[in-house]
Amino acid sequence: MTERLIVVGGGAGGPSAAAKAKREKPSLDVHIFERGPHVSYAACPTPYYIGGRIADADAMIARTPERFARDGIEVHLDQEITAIDPEAGTATDASGTRWAYDYLVYAAGAHSHRPPIPGLDSPHVYTLKDLRDAQRIKQRLDARPVRRALVMGAGYIALEMAEALRERGVQTTILHGGERPLRLLAPELSALLAAELERNGVRYVPGVVFQGVAADEQEASVTTDGETYAGDIVIAALGVRPTVDLARATGIALGETGAVVTNDHQETNLERIYAAGDCTEVRHRVSDCPAYLPLGDIANKQGRVAGANIGGGEVRFPGALGSQSVKLFDLEVALTGLNDEQAARAGFSPVAAQVTARSRAGAYPGGQPLHVRLLAEKTSGRLLGAQLVGAEGAVGRTNVVAAALDRCMSVIELMALDLCYAPPYSPVWDPLHIAAQACAKRL
Amino acid sequence: MTERLIVVGGGAGGPSAAAKAKREKPSLDVHIFERGPHVSYAACPTPYYIGGRIADADAMIARTPERFARDGIEVHLDQEITAIDPEAGTATDASGTRWAYDYLVYAAGAHSHRPPIPGLDSPHVYTLKDLRDAQRIKQRLDARPVRRALVMGAGYIALEMAEALRERGVQTTILHGGERPLRLLAPELSALLAAELERNGVRYVPGVVFQGVAADEQEASVTTDGETYAGDIVIAALGVRPTVDLARATGIALGETGAVVTNDHQETNLERIYAAGDCTEVRHRVSDCPAYLPLGDIANKQGRVAGANIGGGEVRFPGALGSQSVKLFDLEVALTGLNDEQAARAGFSPVAAQVTARSRAGAYPGGQPLHVRLLAEKTSGRLLGAQLVGAEGAVGRTNVVAAALDRCMSVIELMALDLCYAPPYSPVWDPLHIAAQACAKRL
Repeated sequence: MTERLIVVGGGAGGPSAAAKAKREKPSLDVHIFERGPHVSYAACPTPYYIGGRIADADAMIARTPERFARDGIEVHLDQEITAIDPEAGTATDASGTRWAYDYLVYAAGAHSHRPPIPGLDSPHVYTLKDLRDAQRIKQRLDARPVRRALVMGAGYIALEMAEALRERGVQTTILHGGERPLRLLAPELSALLAAELERNGVRYVPGVVFQGVAADEQEASVTTDGETYAGDIVIAALGVRPTVDLARATGIALGETGAVVTNDHQETNLERIYAAGDCTEVRHRVSDCPAYLPLGDIANKQGRVAGANIGGGEVRFPGALGSQSVKLFDLEVALTGLNDEQAARAGFSPVAAQVTARSRAGAYPGGQPLHVRLLAEKTSGRLLGAQLVGAEGAVGRTNVVAAALDRCMSVIELMALDLCYAPPYSPVWDPLHIAAQACAKRL
Repeated sequence: MTERLIVVGGGAGGPSAAAKAKREKPSLDVHIFERGPHVSYAACPTPYYIGGRIADADAMIARTPERFARDGIEVHLDQEITAIDPEAGTATDASGTRWAYDYLVYAAGAHSHRPPIPGLDSPHVYTLKDLRDAQRIKQRLDARPVRRALVMGAGYIALEMAEALRERGVQTTILHGGERPLRLLAPELSALLAAELERNGVRYVPGVVFQGVAADEQEASVTTDGETYAGDIVIAALGVRPTVDLARATGIALGETGAVVTNDHQETNLERIYAAGDCTEVRHRVSDCPAYLPLGDIANKQGRVAGANIGGGEVRFPGALGSQSVKLFDLEVALTGLNDEQAARAGFSPVAAQVTARSRAGAYPGGQPLHVRLLAEKTSGRLLGAQLVGAEGAVGRTNVVAAALDRCMSVIELMALDLCYAPPYSPVWDPLHIAAQACAKRL
């Protein structure tokens, strides 16, 4: 008897699971159901598609439906799974067809958050979560002149959209309910991002209270407690939420973050039902607590683990560190592990040190300031997190700290870590060493 | 009674020890003896000074003698320590003055290797180990037109000198006794460096047997088994050797590498005598064997450890990983840990995998091929080393592996390591993940 795998969701985690399971167990009958028109696409590059750096949307497709078909995986586009019967082991699609499954991967992803602000639910208020969203925004920008844009929010998507809009020459205003861009960043570093926005002609308006949004095909406005801002388009980038309605209806357990809970094999509480990607929560390897980290690379890794286990393997997803990065005009911004507040909440007594060092040897031309913030546990010196901002060298060094966090390295050990040195790439004491020294003094 | 610290050698390790010891124990009477005219300089940027990227030699001075004087450290330039009496606890300088010491740091550094090739000992054959050497070469290049240069060797200094000479428009030929540039690199990667040399107009002649060198103020020639090469200047970059004559005469123990042996406190076998820098060998953290790694960053770290311990602390130097990097025209080259041969010699059964991935997300413009070679132990999967070559992103990722090596991470664990992902900085599966997957398949 041929076994069947049904995959609910065609973003990143689902297709990864499908491909891996099929590779491991070629006899498997694999079906991916995706309610949208695209499968296996990279959502993260979409702001660059909108901004024009990426000319061809096809470049963001990891695997086409034809490629899946060649690999023996059937993709059902514009076809949603609307019900799962875990007792019977069946899934029903929107057309009413009932599919018996031996394994199911719930990978419904996440959706843009639309808080209850009057007018925000208008179809003329754009959001950006998937490729279809990106195409809608791009079509709007291409179709009719957009001179002024309003961006609500100041997270990754908001920042990347502001840059994309500036690349297209659009006057851009960021309206932010909080005080600082990228709320995970320490205030000192976040301020650098606000300055970078202003330096690149983005008007940055923090601390607003949204009272209403009005938008039609031609124009848009956002009303706050202080003012009404007018523009030609409004993009709401107010975060994402895990897509869990069907999971909840099916009896798949949700965690304290509101996302699907899995064990380290990516199994849910229900037999033969796995989950992966932005609809799930992960174990944070530093705090050892559940965390919601809707990031494409994590989705791919989880999907692969689910697929490997469905394919008969025995593979664990080890959890995540919260490593993430964003480019904002000429700044590299990267972070990993916990920030001060998260560390305190997880029960650590954190000490932080922040230094500004050079990205290259002092004598070597072209070096740039690199701002490095490290967080460690006061008693043990154990590293808890890092945040780096600078024109170059932030991401690579943050990844070094990620490896260090993964292995519970202390700042004392980081001080002595043998990193590559050559004048074009770092000072003889790397910025990480300098930050570790500063942090060690506070233990 | 004031205690006195005598530091033998003013390169990198000695001054680091002096500064740290004085900071920790301000009452200490500290003297640095340096036989050359410069103290506390960075030797690594000197090729860029010769090539013209660094205009001012002062930029390479970490601390001037005046700065040391302000910190209460006396620097004796052009003054060599010629004898040490460890029983009496005295050191004698070239002028005959005898200095009683409570602590001594032997940091005599290394010197350019001049193998017994006829004519190689001529003062008109240039070498590059310190700032004075660099000034000599630069003066020669500035004084009289140099159209053609011959570089003997294909290690870091040879490669950096070839680039420096090309930046000055000099026709450059590298004559190499071995087959491949940077002998630590795997052949496949080394070939990329040879191609990069040729692409940038450097003639690369491997496999020569040197038979003689002739050089005067105007011109130079190198005779090999096959041919006589003529030029205006010859630079011998045939490696370095630890400077240990005085150490040997003093009874300081040397190790199997020929360099000074220390414990992890940087203490030699003789009481109150420490050692640091290019004159010492280090414990390799992967092989757990002694290794000779004459690198500026290691010298600084060792010096700091020696100084901290002299100052009353209790600090360990944890050993080194052999992390190193070099820029060669448009290539970043970096490596850490062991290579195949070193791993086999250390008793491991290594398996290697090499992949070529993209430095950025496929859809994002400007990405470059990045060649990643990983080495792991076949039985355990433990990472043993990494070598990366590419136009961007090699050093940062090599440092990630350095942290992983430091903590005995396996390739399986590296496959799942949570690294930052954003399209401008990496594909969703980082080149390190892809290489780890390839390597894991061979376990």
